[in-house]
Amino acid sequence: MINSKPYVIGIDMGGTNTVFGIVDARGVVLASNSIKTRKHSNIDDYVAELCEEINRLIVSIDAQDKIYGIGIGAPNANYFTGMIEDGVNLPWPTPIPFAKMMADKMGVPVAITNDANAAAIGEMTYGAARGLKDFIMITLGTGVGSGIVVNGQLVYGHDGFAGELGHVIVKRNNGRLCGCGRTGCLETYCSATGVARTAREYLEMTDTPSLLRNLPVDEITSKDVYDAAMAGDKLAKDVFEYTGTILGEALADFTVFTAPEAFILFGGLAKSGELLLKPVREAMEKNMLSIWKGKVKIIPSELKEADAAVLGASALGWEAKPMAAPEVIAVTVAAAPEAPKA
Amino acid sequence: MINSKPYVIGIDMGGTNTVFGIVDARGVVLASNSIKTRKHSNIDDYVAELCEEINRLIVSIDAQDKIYGIGIGAPNANYFTGMIEDGVNLPWPTPIPFAKMMADKMGVPVAITNDANAAAIGEMTYGAARGLKDFIMITLGTGVGSGIVVNGQLVYGHDGFAGELGHVIVKRNNGRLCGCGRTGCLETYCSATGVARTAREYLEMTDTPSLLRNLPVDEITSKDVYDAAMAGDKLAKDVFEYTGTILGEALADFTVFTAPEAFILFGGLAKSGELLLKPVREAMEKNMLSIWKGKVKIIPSELKEADAAVLGASALGWEAKPMAAPEVIAVTVAAAPEAPKA
Repeated sequence: MINSKPYVIGIDMGGTNTVFGIVDARGVVLASNSIKTRKHSNIDDYVAELCEEINRLIVSIDAQDKIYGIGIGAPNANYFTGMIEDGVNLPWPTPIPFAKMMADKMGVPVAITNDANAAAIGEMTYGAARGLKDFIMITLGTGVGSGIVVNGQLVYGHDGFAGELGHVIVKRNNGRLCGCGRTGCLETYCSATGVARTAREYLEMTDTPSLLRNLPVDEITSKDVYDAAMAGDKLAKDVFEYTGTILGEALADFTVFTAPEAFILFGGLAKSGELLLKPVREAMEKNMLSIWKGKVKIIPSELKEADAAVLGASALGWEAKPMAAPEVIAVTVAAAPEAPKA
Repeated sequence: MINSKPYVIGIDMGGTNTVFGIVDARGVVLASNSIKTRKHSNIDDYVAELCEEINRLIVSIDAQDKIYGIGIGAPNANYFTGMIEDGVNLPWPTPIPFAKMMADKMGVPVAITNDANAAAIGEMTYGAARGLKDFIMITLGTGVGSGIVVNGQLVYGHDGFAGELGHVIVKRNNGRLCGCGRTGCLETYCSATGVARTAREYLEMTDTPSLLRNLPVDEITSKDVYDAAMAGDKLAKDVFEYTGTILGEALADFTVFTAPEAFILFGGLAKSGELLLKPVREAMEKNMLSIWKGKVKIIPSELKEADAAVLGASALGWEAKPMAAPEVIAVTVAAAPEAPKA
């Protein structure tokens, strides 16, 4: 019976692309493919295409009946309920019972969590966090996400939504407007979008010469700022200094919470290297409570971005519970708080 | 064999008094007493007196050979190392191998953690957090401490120091100087000391009439501010409004971390009732990320302050592991009464 189902499927649903792969127990991606997330205005059509393409992939490597489970990373996905919840930038009405839809269609157990949590699981299973029992994954992409691992376990919280560190308020007064409707959230400063925003502010508020002035101000991306900084542009370098300082201050605050051994930085912006890492480290150390000074590492992700998401999601696939319908899970969760009363 | 060692000892080492008690599996304090923490300038003399008094207590209820273990809550105590670490306001040189000293002297297993963690365990085992798997205990005393529980387990972090939420920076610029050497820490605003500091600032910076002006400004305590507020004093009420607002803003930020079902407020200041709780709740809800609006409870501790510390420490006593490994203990582990495990 052992290894009668030796593979899992990992699915990473992004805002643009949905990437999926068949992965073995050692974390080797045997086959992978992707579809456009926004092609279908109806969620059923999206699920149909996704499953069709997954099945095609399964057949292509002769893996019929060898799939143990499916793990999914998706925005605002709730591990406990299997739902993609409200407040997410996807073309379909929410909440979406995505785990159930996939389980019904594919006939194997499905587990789901948000993309940052999936990346954290991937990093713990196959990447820079191997062997770490307490670490925090920070994803620096369009937004800022996070996956918190305590004592070897991902933190889901009482409702499945824990670890939204991109929405810690870092500027209490006069902070930038965030997509969440509040102001001053970390992700308005330390995401790729935040970097571009900072650059635009610097350009508009100063007369400092900059290579970035050759670009239409509204179209500047974090990549443009990175390229300019690497070319020695003072203003662009200041943008990274500012971004890294805010992130480092936040990481010092995060440390007092779960005392992680390391922060793993992941996502497009994390690839900026020392341009970002140096001010992050300096600000973190400067602001660190003395007992943690010099003790907490900042480590860039070791996984390729696409791989990490699929691998992380697939690692979750090994935890998928055999055919527990999401409704049943939801009922169990609702009853849980009363159960353990001493 | 069952219940051959039916009692644990809980010790709460405070800056002034060290309280200890013998507790049974149901959380009944069978006997308790206290000694002055600062009476001896030598730690060995302190330990000798403490053990002597504990043994006297044991004899008084005829509990010789009935002690399963000892749990200790002490400032800056590290669960992993059993040490009271540096940076703490005690009359002895640190680090202090306190768990080992007590185990050697008493001949039973000893577990140790900081006072806020002990209080959290007490609340989870016997108080307002019974049945909660994800909650955060905030202790509002001379300082601000915390104990974080995730999925039924206290969070210790990679080094045993997790949960120092009193040292989250809530004022990044121009914040108050904290005992930790940094500025703007939560505890400089939301502790009993912080309340008195705010009152002094208000008195010095305004001409607002206040009952507090009858007191020497340097001797004003949080209790004085509370009494004045309850007597209708506008300035004193404003102090609580300000304190509660900062705490509520911080709790909203803490929520994105571990998504707790509740915050349990504990300690002297938590007894201020609605004077504090109302602005805390309002600021927390106003600043809460939408997915948690209306979902996170704020609950005052249900335990008497002295009891909570001893009970919490004693609950930890059931988890104490033998340092010298007598096999008798291992046998008793199986028979040990159910502690707080969810």
